[in-house]
Amino acid sequence: MAVIMDLRCPVEEQRFVLEHVVRIFELTNDSDIVDAVLEGAAQYAEGQVASLNRIGDTVGAKWSPEGVAMPKGFHEAYRGFVEGGWGTISAPEDAGGQGLPLSLGAAVMEDLNAASLGFALCPMLTMGAIEAIEAHGSESQKRDYLPRIVSGEWPATMNLTEPQAGSDVGALRTKAVPNGDGSWLITGSKIYITYGEHDLAENIIHLVLARTPDAPVGTRGISLFLVPKILPDGSRNDLRCASIEHKLGIHASPTCTMAYGDHGGAVGWLIGPEHGGMRSMFTMMNNARLNVGLQGVGIAEAATQRAVAYALGRVQSARVGGASRDAVAIHEHPDVRRMLLRMRALTMGARALAYYAFGQIDRGHRGDAQALMRGDVLTPLVKAWGTDVGCEVASLGVQVHGGMGYVEETGAAQYLRDARIAPIYEGTNGIQAADLVGRKLGLDGGLAFDTLIADIRAEVEAPALSALADAVEILATSLRAADHDDKLAGSYPFLTMCSVLTAGWLMERQARAAVGDTPFAQVKRAAAGYLVAAIVPEALGLAAAAGSGAELLYSVPADALA
Amino acid sequence: MAVIMDLRCPVEEQRFVLEHVVRIFELTNDSDIVDAVLEGAAQYAEGQVASLNRIGDTVGAKWSPEGVAMPKGFHEAYRGFVEGGWGTISAPEDAGGQGLPLSLGAAVMEDLNAASLGFALCPMLTMGAIEAIEAHGSESQKRDYLPRIVSGEWPATMNLTEPQAGSDVGALRTKAVPNGDGSWLITGSKIYITYGEHDLAENIIHLVLARTPDAPVGTRGISLFLVPKILPDGSRNDLRCASIEHKLGIHASPTCTMAYGDHGGAVGWLIGPEHGGMRSMFTMMNNARLNVGLQGVGIAEAATQRAVAYALGRVQSARVGGASRDAVAIHEHPDVRRMLLRMRALTMGARALAYYAFGQIDRGHRGDAQALMRGDVLTPLVKAWGTDVGCEVASLGVQVHGGMGYVEETGAAQYLRDARIAPIYEGTNGIQAADLVGRKLGLDGGLAFDTLIADIRAEVEAPALSALADAVEILATSLRAADHDDKLAGSYPFLTMCSVLTAGWLMERQARAAVGDTPFAQVKRAAAGYLVAAIVPEALGLAAAAGSGAELLYSVPADALA
Repeated sequence: MAVIMDLRCPVEEQRFVLEHVVRIFELTNDSDIVDAVLEGAAQYAEGQVASLNRIGDTVGAKWSPEGVAMPKGFHEAYRGFVEGGWGTISAPEDAGGQGLPLSLGAAVMEDLNAASLGFALCPMLTMGAIEAIEAHGSESQKRDYLPRIVSGEWPATMNLTEPQAGSDVGALRTKAVPNGDGSWLITGSKIYITYGEHDLAENIIHLVLARTPDAPVGTRGISLFLVPKILPDGSRNDLRCASIEHKLGIHASPTCTMAYGDHGGAVGWLIGPEHGGMRSMFTMMNNARLNVGLQGVGIAEAATQRAVAYALGRVQSARVGGASRDAVAIHEHPDVRRMLLRMRALTMGARALAYYAFGQIDRGHRGDAQALMRGDVLTPLVKAWGTDVGCEVASLGVQVHGGMGYVEETGAAQYLRDARIAPIYEGTNGIQAADLVGRKLGLDGGLAFDTLIADIRAEVEAPALSALADAVEILATSLRAADHDDKLAGSYPFLTMCSVLTAGWLMERQARAAVGDTPFAQVKRAAAGYLVAAIVPEALGLAAAAGSGAELLYSVPADALA
Repeated sequence: MAVIMDLRCPVEEQRFVLEHVVRIFELTNDSDIVDAVLEGAAQYAEGQVASLNRIGDTVGAKWSPEGVAMPKGFHEAYRGFVEGGWGTISAPEDAGGQGLPLSLGAAVMEDLNAASLGFALCPMLTMGAIEAIEAHGSESQKRDYLPRIVSGEWPATMNLTEPQAGSDVGALRTKAVPNGDGSWLITGSKIYITYGEHDLAENIIHLVLARTPDAPVGTRGISLFLVPKILPDGSRNDLRCASIEHKLGIHASPTCTMAYGDHGGAVGWLIGPEHGGMRSMFTMMNNARLNVGLQGVGIAEAATQRAVAYALGRVQSARVGGASRDAVAIHEHPDVRRMLLRMRALTMGARALAYYAFGQIDRGHRGDAQALMRGDVLTPLVKAWGTDVGCEVASLGVQVHGGMGYVEETGAAQYLRDARIAPIYEGTNGIQAADLVGRKLGLDGGLAFDTLIADIRAEVEAPALSALADAVEILATSLRAADHDDKLAGSYPFLTMCSVLTAGWLMERQARAAVGDTPFAQVKRAAAGYLVAAIVPEALGLAAAAGSGAELLYSVPADALA
């Protein structure tokens, strides 16, 4: 009945965004390598990873006391990842990476996310660890670990969360004590550790936040440690996966409770200075936050493709008011068409925003301090709005499928289940909103944010976008002057407004560049048109909530809300 | 770590809505019976049903060639339903019902939905069948079947969908041929039949749409048949459940593929005239659509209670800018508070809208033709917006729980999975929107809709509500004049605007009535305040999309959207 289309990674679209949004040829002049990466990654993701998505969901990662077994096919696909060098794209050259722009690596990650989010999480977590070791690690750590982590031979993890320390990382209790020889002994328990244990690789490098003796309380007293599963002498370190979570989605990704030091302590080495863990963590997290935004983009892309394919093949009811009484494919019905165009517009908008942010970080790494700060400003937008878009588009995908969407075999529901984690991890979207109003709005005395809006204002043409820029400017001024509660009360709608404004700006720019009557150009203009015509006015509708302060929220005792 | 609060059915709130929104004491003057029903239903749902929600999800209904086995505990709970007379509340007195207002029965159904949606679906489908038989059945059908269906001894089903006939019911192919003795022989296959087979009762009464010989094509040629699982002579009818679906949620509710007539034909009897099936179906569906809206309300209520309980117990991070550096329960953080108040406001708004619509139908049944038409106008709003609210609130509930929300054990994710069916079945929400602009906007020459908006305008006080009423009026005029495509292109956002306007009106009315400083009154005023301050402006932001027509949607070939 339904046509299930195989994933086709959007190479033409990605190249277009890299050219017109990222302006990647200001970062590299090798157009051939850009094409080769995009085409090779698409081929790998479509050919070796996409077919794992369903078994990853239905079978999932399996825990036993001996470890975690990944589903059939994951091992070969991961070998393909290592052999294809897909982890090396934007890693530093001195560690065996190719040193290509992060924005190009973003396209690779997007493809993996679209193909199988559960699979893609393994390389994604590894990328954060690479950044942290590159920025803060010792020379010997860079020499002994980084090349194998970069190649993917030794994937890496991020160990932050403990039961009492989720969003509040500073509340963590895992301990590290000196071991006499420069190493440390780590004891404690971590939860929600993505790919904390699995059988895809011979070693796993854990980056673990812990507290050293007499460390200050809170975030200023935490340190980051490198704790390998297999020690340099070939022996097993004193750590194990105690269990994995039964989750709504991403079943292929083992979410581990890790036990360190059952037998005296896991051996680890400091990354960066003692008590400097928070800074290292933010290095990991910033990368990870942008990458989580890309998860939203990847899922949205896959869900959109699947919904369009279904709508092309599913014949149901005649067109209302049409000349013929014959049933038509459902994409011909206006409200289905609305859902499809909305999905496409949101997906493209989130992609443009995410790639642009990566491009700003790229410029920052090449010495442009303003661009680096703009990347910082955009990071919470990419993470929060990108993942909100992932959930909304996946949910629309279920709706387009009708009853079939609710049946698991169709695959539409899996996208929704998988997507739903992304607004939660690597800092909930509420924390992203708090980061925007609490830190990013004031970065560089406010200039980082204000120049972004000024650049947008100078370029946008649609009155709706100008109106949204006005609203954002007015709100930025009032939120800066507001007290903490009022600022935070409006933070989430404000973040959405900023995200839609930035995405709308970048989509309008692309629509101008998309000349001619190719299907690609038509879709680009229609998606930009829909964003401006429908989604920008919706964002304007958030202004009241963004500016209305906290008084109403606290006018009632919380327990009375139950 | 987390406090999981047991469900507490919102008796005080329900009574308040019945009094101030439904004005139920214009429908019955027996305040004791209203209280007794609300309290008794709450006690039953909290005590016998809520505890099944988790096993219903994790174990679910199990198919075998012999039939469908329900999870442990469902049988006792269903016996409690029959013995408590919970199916009889608003059923007609001549069929053993209590003849109480539908709006009071709505509160009972809401409680069951909140306790276990998978369980509640069995009585819900039965209610639609009762209406259809009461309105269109023969005297002997009313005598022989209705009392046992009303009591719940013989639950009933609705058999509409076939693989090629989902939203397009007229495309169905199931056949009925005369059997010589006044009965008919039914042959064909139906899919997505809720509670099509189970072991909760000794008989199941299937209401089956089929096509008689030489019937006209399309919806004008379908007829409705009563097809019992067990025939009056005690023999098994020629029908079976061929399989059940593996779904995203409502695992306790067996979604059956039904095979009729493997051995020559299932015996059935016409309900209403031959070729009159469409009218009977709408009688079933109208009730069912309002009840599906109540599913959104019930899930939203349960998800809100659970999220508030979690937020009261989960301690994480100090308040930003607060005097103390101590971590606080997360409900104290403004953005969490925003989510909780939003959940509460949406839940109350959807409840008010749904109960009000039931109350209009009640008035209609007592002879008020205007009210009956208003109920018809409101039905698509209740179904679509009520279920959209169910999904949004359930998703917010997951978010409030953070990482715990993504772990299935917590229960928050189940609400999201269960809620997600409701925008799909009993006419997708897109079909509700088409019904609104295609039929309800023109009902009684447009008067039914226009008097609703006029009544709203005359009572609302908040400028935002007046502005929304203006926008709805302007759009109603332009959509009436628009061609089919433009009308349908704007139908979904228009439906949302109408729903929020009506809910806002009814919430404002309640806020005026909620005097004093009880927690209940404070919450009612805060929820109404949030609806007006945040959700009404969001709805205004939909006006552009509602009015922008279909041209953009068709500016691009659909396959290019993939």
